[in-house]
Amino acid sequence: MSFVEHLQLAFPLIQAPMAGVSTPAMAAAVSQSGALGSIAVGASDAEGARAMIAAVRERCSGTFNVNLFCHRPAIADAVVESRWIERLRPEFEALGASPPESLTEIYRSFIEDDAMLAMLLSERPAAVSFHFGLPGAPAIRALKDAGIYLMASATNIAEARSIVAAGVDAVVAQGWEAGGHRGVFDPDAHDDHLGIVALTRILVRALDVPVIAAGGIMDGAGIAAMLDLGAAAAQLGTAFIATDESLADAGYRTALAGDAAHHSVMTRVVSGRPARCLANRFTSLGTEVPDLDVPAYPIAYDLGKALNAAAKARGDYGYGAQWAGQGAPLARAMPAADLVETLKRETERAR
Amino acid sequence: MSFVEHLQLAFPLIQAPMAGVSTPAMAAAVSQSGALGSIAVGASDAEGARAMIAAVRERCSGTFNVNLFCHRPAIADAVVESRWIERLRPEFEALGASPPESLTEIYRSFIEDDAMLAMLLSERPAAVSFHFGLPGAPAIRALKDAGIYLMASATNIAEARSIVAAGVDAVVAQGWEAGGHRGVFDPDAHDDHLGIVALTRILVRALDVPVIAAGGIMDGAGIAAMLDLGAAAAQLGTAFIATDESLADAGYRTALAGDAAHHSVMTRVVSGRPARCLANRFTSLGTEVPDLDVPAYPIAYDLGKALNAAAKARGDYGYGAQWAGQGAPLARAMPAADLVETLKRETERAR
Repeated sequence: MSFVEHLQLAFPLIQAPMAGVSTPAMAAAVSQSGALGSIAVGASDAEGARAMIAAVRERCSGTFNVNLFCHRPAIADAVVESRWIERLRPEFEALGASPPESLTEIYRSFIEDDAMLAMLLSERPAAVSFHFGLPGAPAIRALKDAGIYLMASATNIAEARSIVAAGVDAVVAQGWEAGGHRGVFDPDAHDDHLGIVALTRILVRALDVPVIAAGGIMDGAGIAAMLDLGAAAAQLGTAFIATDESLADAGYRTALAGDAAHHSVMTRVVSGRPARCLANRFTSLGTEVPDLDVPAYPIAYDLGKALNAAAKARGDYGYGAQWAGQGAPLARAMPAADLVETLKRETERAR
Repeated sequence: MSFVEHLQLAFPLIQAPMAGVSTPAMAAAVSQSGALGSIAVGASDAEGARAMIAAVRERCSGTFNVNLFCHRPAIADAVVESRWIERLRPEFEALGASPPESLTEIYRSFIEDDAMLAMLLSERPAAVSFHFGLPGAPAIRALKDAGIYLMASATNIAEARSIVAAGVDAVVAQGWEAGGHRGVFDPDAHDDHLGIVALTRILVRALDVPVIAAGGIMDGAGIAAMLDLGAAAAQLGTAFIATDESLADAGYRTALAGDAAHHSVMTRVVSGRPARCLANRFTSLGTEVPDLDVPAYPIAYDLGKALNAAAKARGDYGYGAQWAGQGAPLARAMPAADLVETLKRETERAR
């Protein structure tokens, strides 16, 4: 059975999960339109995630995807963290605020969240996807035994092979162009920065499982191109940031529609892991920061979110986690269902 | 008239110029097969270039492209250069050799090469392409008046707009994935590292001239994908490195067929300008080198070539300018004409 048949999709498109941007309403609109909507529950606990799943189901009858963060749990380092707080203190003070005195690991990794696993086995969404790595073999086996289709992000062939070896059904090939958090398993390992065309072709040629292409795709021409490359589907995130159902705030939407969209930056200063963000005051702060000075993900994100909150309280949007891919200048503001219909027409035309 | 009509191409493919790798025999084989072959004369003087043009014409009747380097002429800096020589001296000595005492600007930029311009106006190849920038307005006007089709590389929309404003006929969108020298006009300016999918779509949507997509494309699936993106043609370089007609030496071919192909590196230490090279001893040396420590292009290249020559004399291929794009693992060894025929079949199948 092919990827689209397995997930009963009328159109080979996945709306990327995008924690903090996507909503159950967005996922439902996409799924109701025949593509695969996604929600991201990496920043939620099991009960919050269950409520999000229920909110999607209230709004649509189609299949959808639930995305989980499988990062190595953070190892706290009080020295690095307090230095990092001191480094950003002038930014807080310039905003009339003070940084927190200490930082916490604001998200629990799925690899140690038994309650989340139990919730998924009970709710049984059609698809579950993993980012930043993989859960353990027992979790993968249990999810598969529950009939859930599994996907995981890879940025290179070694990660992709480990995904296939773990029994995951499909690989999401995440190109260097992609917005938001780069799915690298180990953020401190060497990164070859593979673009989506080379990565997709290398994985399609080497693997026997469906490959979903992600990174820099904004329209039907891009979707058609990915299908030509042999991808089973295209995953678009940035294309959905400006939709009506997105949580993107006014500053984020303004940045996306302006010059910053042409200058996205891969940085780890916002969250502690490499992520592609529209160029703003926060990313410019990160230009000269050695990787080792930044606390572990998601501990650094605790401070990043506090800084953004302090700035927003003053009407300053320059410290937002304005994740976006390199295709950002092509983003369009419309309801998500209209965007899916537009993408269908464009894909047809391009091929 | 469309791009392929203008250049009388049966297949929308350009074999990338690749100074030091391509040959008149390669260009002729490609052009004879209905695509656009290219020679690169940036490392030649006018008479050498004239001989290369004659060598293509001896072998084929099709149209072909002559590529020129339009870099800002190097500004010599004796302090930077002597420090650079000292920095690499241990590498030479480990090879039983000594570095040269001083470095020279080994190539003349086309922007100050009147003899090259006169030769082109006399020989009138069907197409001329520019890399690293543009020549002055009088040269562009003279080449156009001579009926020559002009193309120039762009890595972002600002460069592309300046190309169009100068009256150049087509833009070669060079993605971050591309092998060899990155065509940035100013190597010291900020670089957004745009991948080929986002760059091609942004340029196709913004410009009224043909856009040729380059970077990471290795097969017909990739060519079909670029056409879906709205490109008028795809330009492939790395795909031709392992062809019979290539000048790539044994070490280069071995690296291309091995693990290094998965780990290309954008570095300026080999030549003085950012270029994507297969990971080797030379690129690893460059990891920690600040940009400003490297002499200007092509002065640094004088030392890079000397170091490679010293190594090769000992059978060591670890210092070669083994340029390649991120699609390198998909390179195939065969005659160039066979590769073009293979690409045609694959493109047909992919669409």
